[in-house]
Formats: sequence, structure tokens, C-alpha cells
Amino acid sequence: MSRYWSAVVQGLTPYVPGEQPKIHNLLKLNTNENPYGPSFRALEAIRAAAADGLRRYPDPESDALRQALASYHGLQREQVFVGNGSDEVLAHAFQALLKHDGPLLFPDITYSFYPTYCGLYGIKYETVPLDTDFRIQPRDYLPTARSVPAGGIILPNPNAPTGIALTLEQIDGIVSANPQAVVVVDEAYVDFGAESAVSLLSRHHNLLVVHTFSKSRALAGLRVGYAVGHPALIEALARVKNSFNSYPLDTLAQAGAMAALQDEAHFRKICTAIQKSRGLLVEGLQQQGFVVLPSSANFVFARHPKRSGVSLAAALREHGIIVRNFGHPRIEHFLRITVGQDAECRRLLDTLGEILAQ
Amino acid sequence: MSRYWSAVVQGLTPYVPGEQPKIHNLLKLNTNENPYGPSFRALEAIRAAAADGLRRYPDPESDALRQALASYHGLQREQVFVGNGSDEVLAHAFQALLKHDGPLLFPDITYSFYPTYCGLYGIKYETVPLDTDFRIQPRDYLPTARSVPAGGIILPNPNAPTGIALTLEQIDGIVSANPQAVVVVDEAYVDFGAESAVSLLSRHHNLLVVHTFSKSRALAGLRVGYAVGHPALIEALARVKNSFNSYPLDTLAQAGAMAALQDEAHFRKICTAIQKSRGLLVEGLQQQGFVVLPSSANFVFARHPKRSGVSLAAALREHGIIVRNFGHPRIEHFLRITVGQDAECRRLLDTLGEILAQ
Repeated sequence: MSRYWSAVVQGLTPYVPGEQPKIHNLLKLNTNENPYGPSFRALEAIRAAAADGLRRYPDPESDALRQALASYHGLQREQVFVGNGSDEVLAHAFQALLKHDGPLLFPDITYSFYPTYCGLYGIKYETVPLDTDFRIQPRDYLPTARSVPAGGIILPNPNAPTGIALTLEQIDGIVSANPQAVVVVDEAYVDFGAESAVSLLSRHHNLLVVHTFSKSRALAGLRVGYAVGHPALIEALARVKNSFNSYPLDTLAQAGAMAALQDEAHFRKICTAIQKSRGLLVEGLQQQGFVVLPSSANFVFARHPKRSGVSLAAALREHGIIVRNFGHPRIEHFLRITVGQDAECRRLLDTLGEILAQ
Repeated sequence: MSRYWSAVVQGLTPYVPGEQPKIHNLLKLNTNENPYGPSFRALEAIRAAAADGLRRYPDPESDALRQALASYHGLQREQVFVGNGSDEVLAHAFQALLKHDGPLLFPDITYSFYPTYCGLYGIKYETVPLDTDFRIQPRDYLPTARSVPAGGIILPNPNAPTGIALTLEQIDGIVSANPQAVVVVDEAYVDFGAESAVSLLSRHHNLLVVHTFSKSRALAGLRVGYAVGHPALIEALARVKNSFNSYPLDTLAQAGAMAALQDEAHFRKICTAIQKSRGLLVEGLQQQGFVVLPSSANFVFARHPKRSGVSLAAALREHGIIVRNFGHPRIEHFLRITVGQDAECRRLLDTLGEILAQ
């Protein structure tokens, strides 16, 4: 701590991302990256943009990319906001749309960046416990279940790190019942098997849906995320963005994301492959006695009745395999395992078999 | 305005960047971009990084780039913070280091993003008038000149949009006299002729120096900026960054910036060329009767005694040349003109000659 630090810095609890170790032949199943590479069209577009034009500022509004995203989802450009990864988009949403007198609601077990954003922006929040099956119960988010109306709601769908998805009808119910507040649905993992709430936008002015290119588009290294919603919500995000950093997306990211979006075949192919591998992984884990939550994401959340999460994660690490284990109550014995290619899933299962046999 | 907007969004006055028009054969002298392209080594490094590895998250701490910057400046990696353009670095500095009980001080005529940041983070500030020659007077920033000690100080050096630089001795005096506060020196344009305060870091724990790759490195499209200072100041920035966005620099930006930094010959060549062209531009403007402030930047700030700034900017625009004119009192008749290549400076001068002859 330093006397030069502002009060907010002194009170922060920064987010800790999954580690990015630089170890040879590591099997990295800890940050839900895509086991397949990005679209070649995206890579070609980036290489083409690596030219003299980089001396110029990028389009500060990313108009072409926003238009492409709007067309992709059947929306207008004014309904699309883009940012430097969905984490930046979420940060702006917390500051612009989720800070109100009423408390922000989110699950007690969810993306652990949410409470960090609240600390950064001084947002009051209340966590809503998942049920005993680690599911979000929509009724817990209804005004009738609460003494004070929510000032905002944020839910990942599918939830992380559980991987469990709500149905579109359940999301609709939460959004409909809370017209006083913005409901953010964080769909980072939606393309691996859940239903997107984008189709609900025409009926709700208080719904913001957040997507990322990091998971299903295999472009975590490019840092592109976006939000879609009513133009008034998008304008709030733009006002914060234009008071923070005029040019959040560099020229290469805009070009690469545009091209990736146009390669629907690649996108569908890798999402389908990952869903198939997930089936094999879940089956293999269950055969070894793991309890596996039903996942609609590119990761599974699993615990073994006879082994602690810490010990299993440590043992895997000794074999060069990194998964994620969270030290929080209720989920301390779970491992969050990214779905890799089939061979990677098999290596994980074989290694777990050896560990459990010892 | 929408009932869903947070209070801070409702009160924001977003920054307005110079326009990025998409007009053919435009001479764009409005955003202080480099008229020369970036290092070929940077472009090659970016193309090489446009590969399968983009499916992975970038190094969240940008360790290799920070180490390269540290070596470049003769510092330790713990003294370097990198961000998505120097605007993001500045935003974090405002929130982490410049928000205190005492008011933040900056010149009344300076980078117009500063009051916007104050609005975003609720920072009290006082502007300190430039003198009648549009110079920063260091004595105005001394505690002896004030009833309340400053909570922070931020100064661009050279200042923008005047282009006038303080000497290293003057900066040293301000930093030395204000041990109670962080002094941020924003050196976006320092490579075009001013003295960098990086050399003062060994003596001051309250000094933060901010640089960008957008101007002298000709990489505005890549969005890379950085700050150097005492490790305690850097840690404050990192804490905010890690509570906002874990991965602000994409893989391509880290690779490109690293390579650009290694191409010292290209960097020196283009900086020297721009300084030479600036001399020609200033001389030409003076011959046409312009009053030109002494510039140490890659732009000049000039007014014509007989013509308004608005009318000159509009007339230039009709000829396909865009410069910047600020509607603020005291400088409303000035044009801020980016230094282009010699031929571009000549086109500007010839066009101004025609306009003035009408």
C-alpha cells in the first residue's frame, strides 16, 4: 500500500485469471480456450491489416464490425456495442447500467469477476444461492421473492463454472418480471449448447446480452467482445467508453473479428466437435465415479466423491495437466475442466485413471 | 437519457476524438498520426502472431513487452505498466492515483480528455491558466502558490494542443515541490523534441511518465501505451487493471510493440524527418502571417491575425484538408495542424495561400 493510492485502489480485490504457464507439452484445460484454431479467414484478414495503415487510429466506433454483428443477429447497428474482450464490455455495463440504489443480484457461484467489478465501481450487490443441484432458480430473482427490488441482475447463461444453462423461457421470466432493472445475460459459452436470449431483445428494453469471440470463435488472443440490447442501453455503454478510451478495438481486432464472423462453417464445425468431445469426456468421468454437472458449455464441472479437488488438481499438474479448482465453499471439491480435442480428453481421463488407482 | 442509466452516465461529457472520415484523397492532419508507416519488423511480428496461437489468451501481464520497455529505459519490469493505448493507461491513473481529497491540477488549455476522466471517476479538479504566451508556468503548480495542496498534477510535455515543452529542470521542480501528490507527465509527443522525465524516476517516487506507440512509433492502429514509475505506483495501476480487464493487450499488440521497440533505426529516422518537416511548415506558416507557437511536437498550433479559426478550418476542408480547431475560449482562432511529409506540408501551405488570397 502507498499513500499515493486512491481510496478505491486500497479496497480492491482484483480478479485472478487462470494461469498462463509457459511449460512445454502442457495440457492446458484451465481457461476454457478453444482446442481448435481460429478461422483462416480471420488470420488472413489480420495479416492483410498488418500494413502501413496501422499508423492511423482505428475507427473509434468500430462501425463496420458493429454493422456485421447487427446483420448476423438481425439487429440494427445502434443495438450493438463492442469492446476489448467481453470483460471490458461487462466492466462498462457494471458502471453504466448496474449501479443503482437497489442491489445488484447475481448467483453466489458464478463468474468471479462480478464482485470485483462491484468493488471497482462501489456497487451494492447481493448474491443469490444456487439450489442444492447447483442450479439458478429463476423464482429467486422475481420481485415477489424480495423485500427491495433489484437495481440490476447479471447471470451467465450457461452459468460458470457450473456449465448449467437456463431455458429461454426461464430467462424471459426473469427479464419480464424485473422491468425496473437491467438484466445482463452473459452468454460467453452460449454457442456450446444453450439458447441465446438475443431473440428476446425485440420484446424487452431492459435486456443486455453479452458475447465474446474468445470461446466459440477461438480468438481469445484477439480480445473482442460485444453487447446487444436496446439502443438506450448501448448508448450508456458508449458514453462510458467515450469517457474512458476512444479506441478500444485496434485495427487488427476489428478486421479479424469481421472475418471470423463471416466464416460460419468453421464456427459451426468447431462448436459441434467440442460438443461431441464433451459427451466423451462426461461419460469417461462418470465411469471413473465423478459426479458431473450437466454442461452446456465448453467445460465440465465435476467432483470425485473420494478425492478432494485440491489433491486431484495438484496430481494432474504433476502430470502436466492444468485444470481449475476454486477454493470457494460448496465448490471446493469440484474441478473445472475445459473440453479439449478428443485426444486431449483421453489423456486427461487416462491420467485421472492412474491417479485414482494409486 | 434512460431510467436504466446509472447516475454517473447521466452526468458524463464524453471526449470527442478527431474525426476519422472515409474520404478519398483526403489530407488528414487532424489527429497527429505519423505520416510514415510503422517499422516493417513490427508488421512482420504481427503477421507471424496471426496464427493458431490466437485461440489462447494473451499473457495478461504482458511480461515480455514490459521487460523490453524496462530494458529500453534502463528500468525494472516492476516499474512498467502497459495498456490498450495511453488513453487507457491515463484512465487507470486517474482512478488509481489522481483521485484524492485535494484537487487535481492541470492546465486550462491541455488534452481535453482530462476533465472527461474526472467526470467519469468523480475527481475534483482545478485548471491552472497558461500564461499569456500559452506557456505552463511551473510556479503556479508549487504548494506556495496555493491555499490547498494539490491531490495530484497532470501535465502533457510537450503540452497539447500548444506543442510547447517544459524543460527537464522545470518538470523536476514541480515534482520535487509536490511530494504529497502524484505528478503524471504525459509524454505522448516527447520524442519529437522535448526532454523525457524518465531520467528523473530514480529520484522521485511520486512521478509517473506516460508514453504511447501511437505517435512516434506510428502504431496508432495497434493501441499500445505505457507508464513508467515507482513500483508502488505501477502496482496501483495493475490493481485497477486486474479489477477491470485482465487482458488489455491482445497477442498481436504485444508482439508488434515488442518488435517496434527493437527497430530503433526506423524510430529515429521518422522522428528526425518529422522534426525537419515541422521546420518547413512553421517557416511557411510564418511567411503567410500566421502566429505559430514554438512546437516540440508532431503538430503546430497557429492562428492568423486576420482570419477566424473556424473559417480557415472550413475552407481547408473544402479543399480536402482536415485540421483541428477547438471551440474553447482563448484558442478558438488557432488551428492544430499535424506535421505531414514534406509534400503534405506543401499542399497545406499552398492551399492556405489560395484561401488567404481570396
